[in-house]
Amino acid sequence: MINGNNIIACNYTEIEGQAFTVADPSTGEKLSGEFYEADTLIIDKTLNAATAAFKVYKNTMPATKAKFLRAIANEIAALGDVLINRAVAESGLPVGRIIGEMGRTTGQLRMFADMVEEGSWVDAVIDTAQLDRVPIPRSDIRRMLTAIGPVVVFGASNFPLAFSVAGGDTASALAAGCPVIVKVHPAHPGTSALVGAAISKAAKETGMPDGVFSLLFDSGYTVGAALVKHEQTKAVAFTGSYKGGMALIKLAQERKSLIPVFTEMGSINPVVLLPGILDAQPEVLVAKYAGSITLGAGQFCTNPGLILAIRSAGLDRFITALGGAIELVPSATMLTPGIWKNYGTLAEETLAENGIELIAKSKLINTEKVNQSVATVATVSAKNFIANKKFSEEIFGPWSLLVVADDIAELEQVIASLDGQLTTTVMAQKEELPQYTSVLNALTEISGRVILNGVPTGVEVCAAMQHGGPFPSTSDSRFTSVGTGAIYRFVRPVAWQDWDDSLLPPELQSNNPLNIWRQVNNNWTKE
Amino acid sequence: MINGNNIIACNYTEIEGQAFTVADPSTGEKLSGEFYEADTLIIDKTLNAATAAFKVYKNTMPATKAKFLRAIANEIAALGDVLINRAVAESGLPVGRIIGEMGRTTGQLRMFADMVEEGSWVDAVIDTAQLDRVPIPRSDIRRMLTAIGPVVVFGASNFPLAFSVAGGDTASALAAGCPVIVKVHPAHPGTSALVGAAISKAAKETGMPDGVFSLLFDSGYTVGAALVKHEQTKAVAFTGSYKGGMALIKLAQERKSLIPVFTEMGSINPVVLLPGILDAQPEVLVAKYAGSITLGAGQFCTNPGLILAIRSAGLDRFITALGGAIELVPSATMLTPGIWKNYGTLAEETLAENGIELIAKSKLINTEKVNQSVATVATVSAKNFIANKKFSEEIFGPWSLLVVADDIAELEQVIASLDGQLTTTVMAQKEELPQYTSVLNALTEISGRVILNGVPTGVEVCAAMQHGGPFPSTSDSRFTSVGTGAIYRFVRPVAWQDWDDSLLPPELQSNNPLNIWRQVNNNWTKE
Repeated sequence: MINGNNIIACNYTEIEGQAFTVADPSTGEKLSGEFYEADTLIIDKTLNAATAAFKVYKNTMPATKAKFLRAIANEIAALGDVLINRAVAESGLPVGRIIGEMGRTTGQLRMFADMVEEGSWVDAVIDTAQLDRVPIPRSDIRRMLTAIGPVVVFGASNFPLAFSVAGGDTASALAAGCPVIVKVHPAHPGTSALVGAAISKAAKETGMPDGVFSLLFDSGYTVGAALVKHEQTKAVAFTGSYKGGMALIKLAQERKSLIPVFTEMGSINPVVLLPGILDAQPEVLVAKYAGSITLGAGQFCTNPGLILAIRSAGLDRFITALGGAIELVPSATMLTPGIWKNYGTLAEETLAENGIELIAKSKLINTEKVNQSVATVATVSAKNFIANKKFSEEIFGPWSLLVVADDIAELEQVIASLDGQLTTTVMAQKEELPQYTSVLNALTEISGRVILNGVPTGVEVCAAMQHGGPFPSTSDSRFTSVGTGAIYRFVRPVAWQDWDDSLLPPELQSNNPLNIWRQVNNNWTKE
Repeated sequence: MINGNNIIACNYTEIEGQAFTVADPSTGEKLSGEFYEADTLIIDKTLNAATAAFKVYKNTMPATKAKFLRAIANEIAALGDVLINRAVAESGLPVGRIIGEMGRTTGQLRMFADMVEEGSWVDAVIDTAQLDRVPIPRSDIRRMLTAIGPVVVFGASNFPLAFSVAGGDTASALAAGCPVIVKVHPAHPGTSALVGAAISKAAKETGMPDGVFSLLFDSGYTVGAALVKHEQTKAVAFTGSYKGGMALIKLAQERKSLIPVFTEMGSINPVVLLPGILDAQPEVLVAKYAGSITLGAGQFCTNPGLILAIRSAGLDRFITALGGAIELVPSATMLTPGIWKNYGTLAEETLAENGIELIAKSKLINTEKVNQSVATVATVSAKNFIANKKFSEEIFGPWSLLVVADDIAELEQVIASLDGQLTTTVMAQKEELPQYTSVLNALTEISGRVILNGVPTGVEVCAAMQHGGPFPSTSDSRFTSVGTGAIYRFVRPVAWQDWDDSLLPPELQSNNPLNIWRQVNNNWTKE
């Protein structure tokens, strides 16, 4: 039986709020477990505990923080089938996908543990004193990154593990030295409760201050709004829709104090098919893209929702083959009835616009289950695309729109008309690329990641990953929410001027006891 | 004769707007030169030129950008006495100070030139492909920082050179690869026009695209507001008052697209005098602090406006000596009649509050000049300070308030009651510091720079400097506006996935042609 009480500072609260339940999206049947909505009193208690814990946790030694992060990974892994089955039941995602996501989640935690333990991520910069400088001596100044304070994390519906309670946001905030308060996504409260218990257990095992973690339920928007507006909240991380992200931004703008609010709001991830590859191997492109469009029922922030190409015989072959492939993509359960309904409505509305033409819809719809996605691809001319903003809106689900340009100039106009994107992709023959540098530059200018001959789905969790692009794909293109770089959202530099070693953090002490890479008098060194 | 026309894309525009003039603040007499207010049409032209230039300038090779920055420094230095005399006349600041500021300004430009030329600042991260990884191969992913787009810089009144047209904001934005549009501060339009011409000349000399720099005049707020709200503006940098900074933030919140707006809004920079040093050498403290409080007529963001101490015989000696020293500080011309009036009004209003007691005011007031600052120090009990928010507001000018606590617990309560600060300072005997770690931690938590036995004024321009603290001292504590770190406000990471070397920026090519420090497969290396 899953405990659906709120977790304040790693401990369950008494049942206080209103109860809600959750249904299996593939059947509509109620799943076990009741979850209790948090209230204002709980929120105050939570933030007080987080603020108190922050004073201790931010100064926790790297090795100890790493132990905590690894303990979370271990506790989550130990949940095994209980967690996997619950996540499958709540999300409608296939078992294989959830197993993969569990690996990604524990892998992320261990990756941050390694990074914290290695230690160089704090960007230590040391400029030593120059006492003989004229006209005035130079002070000794040493700077490093320090934790920003309690972070509110919103669980995302489409990654019930990897972008939820112990996902990338939580892992990076904890790694930074920030206590975390998770606002549970109401689509997977059971999964969240299980993971929340795992984190709490890990915190206790490794001697963390209790306030380092809390987990709050709400079936609506009240708790999330109160958390964002709470003056003790020092940063917010969110992955979801444009509407949801902008609502949080607006709430944060009403605060007395400004705080960083990182919202990843998805995008349509344009893919440019260059003429050479379309001519040479249109069917290979289809094999890649039919899969990417419909992966996870298209419920990825990096789903390729827009394909751009120039009219040609190769493109005609691509269209025919893509239509054939999409018709044979079996339906899949979408995450929630709301997402399923939105997808259907938006797809229908868009298909009813002038100038758009359906290429194909999936014919393999499972009628024994509910909330089934219908993969859909359609096409529109570049002129019509540019003229109608509706065509560039994200349709969250297995949807892609092929925009056909008359020539390269028109294709560039299409790119210039686009808003900021998480990713852009180019499919090309190696030889033809040098002719299209202006296209490549234009794609780079609007996105955070530029892919060659691959698919935007499947975001690698690594140090070089950038998952964050110009607005509106994210609220601040200078940060990433995937990969170890995600930690930089939750830290701020502090400079110490003229302090003795004994009072400095170890990262800044002259003899470099943690053996980290530092910038000393403008040289990179481990000395 | 100074040309007071707006500069669009490094070229003077025809006279179009309304003319305004400026007066010498020490005499109130009109200075030579007429300056012409920009209008909406000019603003559109300017942003179009900047956007066009961005496409070229962002990809300019490091060595070429460095040449441009050094040419600006040379052109400014070449202005010599013409510039120095005009800046003195417009700001009321002494010649020595302006000469120093000129050195800082050209020094900053050269420092950014060196950094750009060295090249490692782009934070290149390379994770190479793992084609044999199971279940799926890993792509080759390479990330580096790239310029964000046209940046609007607001000239600051208190640094007519170092934080104005070619100040730290402009230097860091240009170094990042961003075109800059400066909104001139109306208190020093002549100085701004001279420096604007120098930048334009340097841009032409070194073959930069014209749109890389523009300079717009306005005696009011219309042009600044329009620049911040313009959709082609991609970032904003401002140094000034809380009121001014928040006005820009609010304007930016009305934009369609979110952009980073870095506002440095000053602070009261608390200084804690620990009991040991107060007992041992109160007069030494006075010598340091009477100077820091009144330096530049107290018109620094880092002016020590708040001194915290525990009641003691040493403190009594400090108070007496401080009063004596302040009485002998000669008045100085303040930057503008508005700043002078505000200072007087705020000081008077604050001195009229309950519980505050004047320690001393300067007795050496120059009655032959106008807009003369009157250095003032006052004292209040910790209880009264905490009870009345008015006491923690910044009074921009040579003002400092001494808060007297009964004991260390009360002193910590005072610190806990404070908002975010640019700096905090501890004056201490070395031996007593270990007893006060909770004070040190509390100071670190609320500020961006923590100083031991020094003064907060005199911000070193170096790699380790942090000039940016928790709100409301700046809008985003994660960035600095002084030092080479200032460049990170104007860049965003872009990741390239699976590209060949020939199509990657040189910073990311496998053979590391620029010989920069990079993080390759989690190791720092120049290989």
